[in-house]
Amino acid sequence: VSGPQAAFGGRAGFGRRPALVVVDMSVGFTDAASPLACDVDGALAAIARLLAGAREAALPVVFTTVSYGRADEIAARAFLDKAPALRTLAAGSRWVEIDPRIAPRPAEPVLGKLFASAFFGTPLASLLVAAGVDSLLVTGASTSGCVRATVVDALQHGFRPVVAREAVADRDRAAHEQNLRDMDARYADVVPLETAVGWLAEIAAPVRAAAEASPSPATAPLP
Amino acid sequence: VSGPQAAFGGRAGFGRRPALVVVDMSVGFTDAASPLACDVDGALAAIARLLAGAREAALPVVFTTVSYGRADEIAARAFLDKAPALRTLAAGSRWVEIDPRIAPRPAEPVLGKLFASAFFGTPLASLLVAAGVDSLLVTGASTSGCVRATVVDALQHGFRPVVAREAVADRDRAAHEQNLRDMDARYADVVPLETAVGWLAEIAAPVRAAAEASPSPATAPLP
Amino acid sequence: VSGPQAAFGGRAGFGRRPALVVVDMSVGFTDAASPLACDVDGALAAIARLLAGAREAALPVVFTTVSYGRADEIAARAFLDKAPALRTLAAGSRWVEIDPRIAPRPAEPVLGKLFASAFFGTPLASLLVAAGVDSLLVTGASTSGCVRATVVDALQHGFRPVVAREAVADRDRAAHEQNLRDMDARYADVVPLETAVGWLAEIAAPVRAAAEASPSPATAPLP
Amino acid sequence: VSGPQAAFGGRAGFGRRPALVVVDMSVGFTDAASPLACDVDGALAAIARLLAGAREAALPVVFTTVSYGRADEIAARAFLDKAPALRTLAAGSRWVEIDPRIAPRPAEPVLGKLFASAFFGTPLASLLVAAGVDSLLVTGASTSGCVRATVVDALQHGFRPVVAREAVADRDRAAHEQNLRDMDARYADVVPLETAVGWLAEIAAPVRAAAEASPSPATAPLP
Repeated sequence: VSGPQAAFGGRAGFGRRPALVVVDMSVGFTDAASPLACDVDGALAAIARLLAGAREAALPVVFTTVSYGRADEIAARAFLDKAPALRTLAAGSRWVEIDPRIAPRPAEPVLGKLFASAFFGTPLASLLVAAGVDSLLVTGASTSGCVRATVVDALQHGFRPVVAREAVADRDRAAHEQNLRDMDARYADVVPLETAVGWLAEIAAPVRAAAEASPSPATAPLP
Repeated sequence: VSGPQAAFGGRAGFGRRPALVVVDMSVGFTDAASPLACDVDGALAAIARLLAGAREAALPVVFTTVSYGRADEIAARAFLDKAPALRTLAAGSRWVEIDPRIAPRPAEPVLGKLFASAFFGTPLASLLVAAGVDSLLVTGASTSGCVRATVVDALQHGFRPVVAREAVADRDRAAHEQNLRDMDARYADVVPLETAVGWLAEIAAPVRAAAEASPSPATAPLP
Repeated sequence: VSGPQAAFGGRAGFGRRPALVVVDMSVGFTDAASPLACDVDGALAAIARLLAGAREAALPVVFTTVSYGRADEIAARAFLDKAPALRTLAAGSRWVEIDPRIAPRPAEPVLGKLFASAFFGTPLASLLVAAGVDSLLVTGASTSGCVRATVVDALQHGFRPVVAREAVADRDRAAHEQNLRDMDARYADVVPLETAVGWLAEIAAPVRAAAEASPSPATAPLP
Repeated sequence: VSGPQAAFGGRAGFGRRPALVVVDMSVGFTDAASPLACDVDGALAAIARLLAGAREAALPVVFTTVSYGRADEIAARAFLDKAPALRTLAAGSRWVEIDPRIAPRPAEPVLGKLFASAFFGTPLASLLVAAGVDSLLVTGASTSGCVRATVVDALQHGFRPVVAREAVADRDRAAHEQNLRDMDARYADVVPLETAVGWLAEIAAPVRAAAEASPSPATAPLP
């Protein structure tokens, strides 16, 4: 090992079949009236482009939302004690709905979660395995919270995580930048949005070709 | 919610019965000759004090070490690709042994792990549940890597994490500081070493009193 | 080891603080019109007694229900292929509601799950840890399916599982009996209903005494 | 749903890329002198054939062994209390070594575990994901213990489990047969050994063809 460059921050590379996960882009994180609001303007536009690309490539798309019902308070007590603002995310309220500007389609799972990682206490890993996925394009909010926890868990579960820089958002600029550096050094390839869009387009190309050669591609079931 | 202070960074408080986890204080992270070396001088001294306190209080003590055998390369490939320096940690080498200055006792588990979190792919959560623990005092290295991943997972598993500031170490000062801020805002109470030492002493007091009233306390099995 | 009696089937014993889990007693498993129906008459009565006992002792009570929305079909495909009758359990239908004869109270979690174990892909373990539980009284249906999978996982997570024999149900008598034998040999103490009722009453006694000594115990929050 | 045949026991089908897992075929389960001994004569021969097939097809092969060191007793206490015979499996003893008649190759992982499922507290799921596997051929002992627990967890993690009937063993005939029925009804395709051998041969065919067309196939790295 000849230096810090060689020790950390290697390129893990993209997989052959990614899924796109949109972490916690619920109104509670995207509406300026919420105590949890992040600076999401750029991220919303970036995520919309990635959603279009993933759907064209017929790749799995998964959303997550943090949501607390009355009966969830036992399990999540320590988290709620640390971050009381999370109590905003009451089950059934508009705060836990995915921002309508990037609304999920009916067949796209919206996984409820109580904690930071999209994998924890949810069937996300099972879903990705059953869908034959080998990598995870992670987007959403916040960079220094649920996005990072999801990236760490993706790697731990055996999936190669990729973060599109413009598609993640935070409410604290210093935390945003340091967490991007941490993730890029150890866990994920942090890449420009255009790189991620290009990757999805490459995967979509044969799908589009097959669709053009066939009369009714729209009826094909999701994988 | 009246401001950022109220929104994040609440005090989750200590539990009644913590365990002490010493994350990755193997020679590969403590010896300056390693490409993974962290600035551990202060942390080694701090951990030694916490080990003494936890042992006097008869609390569970657990060590972790990252170690890769030839057959682990499949599972950990993406992590090894991102951080090639991890290949230093060859199973059976001195790099994966816990630093002798804070050596484990024979009944104290040393859990091998392949990834960042001490919980992932290990029986740590089962051990803590079986030992009747409700909180986890997290120490070790690196602050911005395996310590943080362990703190996030502790909270997710239902344990209250506490970080003793002087007992965690990193190789990058900015990452160290930002990750302490992130953990304190969302996941753990980050406290001065003396506060953690005092907490353990409080728990030890009745244990010591019982020992003084009884002829052979040293023979009592660990919980 | 002197014989099979010594080799397996030891008494693991009760814990000091159990939770009660009611596995999959939704209409889809309790209504004779469902292809998944089990012989639940005795179990419903037994569970009602255990619910009363657990509530009097102020112990955590958790229900589970298997429920599939359109977007869950990716994750659960292999399970749905093996047991097509599971498709009965459509999200939002009456089949996934807990049988009204043993209806949950508002603060009692009803965890949705896609698979057999109540722990898998759910926050059950976190909930039990946060509630300070050390053991799990497992009831519900079916004995040879989700009950057994939950018992194995309870033990693996560090909780002592106990099965009240009359409070579990199946649709196949031979499978029911063999699975009770398997669980009792390896994983759980399988005990008569009266033993479990007595255990809860013992825990309830000081709770009741405290309530009688205090004017408004009912307002105390759940742990 | 027209009858029990339609309700359960569907054929989930094989995957495109299985891994082979050999569960707990350590001396402690295969030597008649052990209190844990199973009737393994047929299973050893069957597993040897499947190992040959999986290696020829360049598929991942994983072994597991249950092994308890002094420090593992906290985590596994409830299991050891239920099945005291498990104490035979002392870390470092010959009882925890894989039976030499089906010895692992150096690059084949031997995962240590404390509990029943090969997935629990181990990096097995991460390994399978990183290896691009979609299904799991489960073999070993005992049918009614660790094999079944592994099969349930494979399905839950999103992998299609297949059991080769002659390649699993138990010490109790009734338990063996009932657990095969339970697994085939709900979780796995239980198939004759020859079917599994044929499946591996099909996968091996193009691998063998490529090897014959290339001068030094033996140097290809494991997936």
